[in-house]
Amino acid sequence: MDDVITALTKGIAVYETLRTYNGKPFALKEHYERLKKSLSYLKIEPPAFEDFEKLVYENLSERMRIVYVYSKSLLEYVFQEDTEEFKVEYVKVDITTVRRADPWSIPPDLKSLGRPDIYLARLTKGDNYDVIMLGTKGQVCEGTFSNVFLIKNGKFITPSLESGILDGITRMYVIRFLKESGYEVEERFVEPAELFYADEVFLTHTSRGIVPVNQIGTLKTKSVELSSKLSKAFEEYVKCLL
Amino acid sequence: MDDVITALTKGIAVYETLRTYNGKPFALKEHYERLKKSLSYLKIEPPAFEDFEKLVYENLSERMRIVYVYSKSLLEYVFQEDTEEFKVEYVKVDITTVRRADPWSIPPDLKSLGRPDIYLARLTKGDNYDVIMLGTKGQVCEGTFSNVFLIKNGKFITPSLESGILDGITRMYVIRFLKESGYEVEERFVEPAELFYADEVFLTHTSRGIVPVNQIGTLKTKSVELSSKLSKAFEEYVKCLL
Amino acid sequence: MDDVITALTKGIAVYETLRTYNGKPFALKEHYERLKKSLSYLKIEPPAFEDFEKLVYENLSERMRIVYVYSKSLLEYVFQEDTEEFKVEYVKVDITTVRRADPWSIPPDLKSLGRPDIYLARLTKGDNYDVIMLGTKGQVCEGTFSNVFLIKNGKFITPSLESGILDGITRMYVIRFLKESGYEVEERFVEPAELFYADEVFLTHTSRGIVPVNQIGTLKTKSVELSSKLSKAFEEYVKCLL
Amino acid sequence: MDDVITALTKGIAVYETLRTYNGKPFALKEHYERLKKSLSYLKIEPPAFEDFEKLVYENLSERMRIVYVYSKSLLEYVFQEDTEEFKVEYVKVDITTVRRADPWSIPPDLKSLGRPDIYLARLTKGDNYDVIMLGTKGQVCEGTFSNVFLIKNGKFITPSLESGILDGITRMYVIRFLKESGYEVEERFVEPAELFYADEVFLTHTSRGIVPVNQIGTLKTKSVELSSKLSKAFEEYVKCLL
Repeated sequence: MDDVITALTKGIAVYETLRTYNGKPFALKEHYERLKKSLSYLKIEPPAFEDFEKLVYENLSERMRIVYVYSKSLLEYVFQEDTEEFKVEYVKVDITTVRRADPWSIPPDLKSLGRPDIYLARLTKGDNYDVIMLGTKGQVCEGTFSNVFLIKNGKFITPSLESGILDGITRMYVIRFLKESGYEVEERFVEPAELFYADEVFLTHTSRGIVPVNQIGTLKTKSVELSSKLSKAFEEYVKCLL
Repeated sequence: MDDVITALTKGIAVYETLRTYNGKPFALKEHYERLKKSLSYLKIEPPAFEDFEKLVYENLSERMRIVYVYSKSLLEYVFQEDTEEFKVEYVKVDITTVRRADPWSIPPDLKSLGRPDIYLARLTKGDNYDVIMLGTKGQVCEGTFSNVFLIKNGKFITPSLESGILDGITRMYVIRFLKESGYEVEERFVEPAELFYADEVFLTHTSRGIVPVNQIGTLKTKSVELSSKLSKAFEEYVKCLL
Repeated sequence: MDDVITALTKGIAVYETLRTYNGKPFALKEHYERLKKSLSYLKIEPPAFEDFEKLVYENLSERMRIVYVYSKSLLEYVFQEDTEEFKVEYVKVDITTVRRADPWSIPPDLKSLGRPDIYLARLTKGDNYDVIMLGTKGQVCEGTFSNVFLIKNGKFITPSLESGILDGITRMYVIRFLKESGYEVEERFVEPAELFYADEVFLTHTSRGIVPVNQIGTLKTKSVELSSKLSKAFEEYVKCLL
Repeated sequence: MDDVITALTKGIAVYETLRTYNGKPFALKEHYERLKKSLSYLKIEPPAFEDFEKLVYENLSERMRIVYVYSKSLLEYVFQEDTEEFKVEYVKVDITTVRRADPWSIPPDLKSLGRPDIYLARLTKGDNYDVIMLGTKGQVCEGTFSNVFLIKNGKFITPSLESGILDGITRMYVIRFLKESGYEVEERFVEPAELFYADEVFLTHTSRGIVPVNQIGTLKTKSVELSSKLSKAFEEYVKCLL
């Protein structure tokens, strides 16, 4: 115990959040690869995939968070996340003034606990489902736990990785799903104004898949028509992958 | 214990590092004020000064680190830092490529554990005593645990607070000490090239006071004459303040 | 003539745009002071105020542009600007993706010809009256020839000078006018989203005073009620100052 | 004439600087392509290559500058540059505090007259041959009229195009020359400190080819051994290409 506390206060902890469907963890390999990437920044030897897999299966829950931190040896810690039903059909978001740390300061794909920029952004959430963070140049990045998509004239737009965002696993599956469904998806720098000009906006994250947005700040004008349909379709799409 | 672990993995912990001289903690009030500032960013109610003082005196050691983290209630944790003798007369530093997070991302005076920018910078230290971090515009900021001063033509120069640095308590005492000793001190934006053009460079931090620098990267040309003298004089200056 | 061409191709030209009311130039002294500031960046000796004044009166027109460029001696050149009637009651603007150059690159109050950032922004104007430029951190700066104001809950907000904007003379008079009219005016960093959340938005510039905005990009929802009233009142206010 | 003045004060002029060897212009096609790029940013139709070629041959001089500016039609203007002998074997440079405008503000390959950032940097030159500009993140970019190369442990390093630099034609030929000579050339982000750690530093520009640097600011420690040899060899290399 003391070891964990020492590690957590002296070191830096990385984590992955996983979701299971009917007792099967989703995208286990991708989560493992991302964990390896996070640990590589910290120059920490990753666990073997088999050990990671074993840890997941031994602690299986619908939504789980696995934390790794190093102190003499690699310590691991598994949390069960809340699984309250996701009843809302659409959500309200806002844009926070807290900028996402620049990639020259913190690599976007270092998924660590205690990132103050993300933590401080979360403190500005109020009654919003999530708040969208801009990058150091003012470009749209992502929510504090979600990625952002826009629909404009039937085309899908989402911030590119070079915008300084985390390579979200659900984001990647949603892009694949949209392309397989015949839609055009543009990954590029996105300006905040585009969120207001978009026909629809939605978030994506591991625990909920696609989450339609009907309101940004005080502007309630967003349609959720297409994104609501896609939200249900994506749920089926993911189940078929398992 | 479990509470601390939960707090450390879900929340964000802030800390102060204190030094004692002959059993008396130095700059207790200033450290308390800075702690309050850190907690205010996290919207956490600070402890009363009396409780902070009591905690320090009950855990007194030559160099101590006090950690606070919130989970239902405010949790505290005191570490004793290593006190190995400081035998070297001067040190070697380098400039890291890891940029200090911009103030729009993380307030410079939020002194929190697990800041990935500082942690990653520390990983690039090699055989250097400390590495100097630049800000998002390339301006000189500070070391990962120290502040930086230059001497050029008898004048002292140090990055201003608006450069995006922590308001170091030792830095403040050193500026006061230099001014009282009749020196001119300039607080302003400093360019990396100035480190190489300076006559002398030194670091300041709680545990060691003034630390002369005789080498930056591969350049060994620095004098340590004046800064060595000042290092000893500052030690006496501080003791007289207690 | 050849001298002017050589000067314009080798050097950098600065300018001021003046407006006259009933044959009297407005804010002559302020324009002269700003001209001096521009020339100081280029290390060019300014003309005497009397010479500047004489030049203006000898070339008086309703809207005039005075250009200075140095080549061996200080050369001057006066243009008469178009004076077509300003019939529209409100205008449409958009936010351009071209960022205003950072103050560390180009001082915001160096009013020079041929600034590529402003020129390129202007090329993105389309059917908009003006386009609003953001700064290097994504903060709202100003139009390519105007300053920006927001009204939110009866309070006026405009980007502060430290946002990296030109110290607009009309902007300064509008702030003074609003304060004298009993309104609260906040000068601070403004985020692009605030333009969409505002009750009203208006531009200010020398030639037209206050210009209400009823549409930003594709969003037509803005009221122009208060800003239209203020536009007329400001016209009277200025005339009384002469 | 009046047309040129109007164009120069209302529009933005682009240019190319050419060098001739024994009456033959060097890299004519490359200069034409870059000119086209510059004009494309301004949405100006470029001249035909044949017209550009003809203009060059009709105004041939050892070092020439060709300026284009648009006002109703495309206007052109040719200057003969000074051709004083290049007697110095090596030069002194410094790093200016004026940052190169960010690519989000001004495209690095828009080669226009009257760029205030470059003009202001030039004003800080003093007795230096050229001053090196850093980018908005503090990375090394280029001189006000030259590109920068470092030699470290026998390897050549130069800022990559994504550092926000002009795609210098001489820079490109030097890279090609170095690679053909069997050297390794790394194009990447370069930190200012690396200029001080390098074994040798040299500049490249159209008029002079490779120019060895023996002093940066107050530090005179640079060797010019290899760069001096390369300077002569490159001169021969270029002549063979014609």
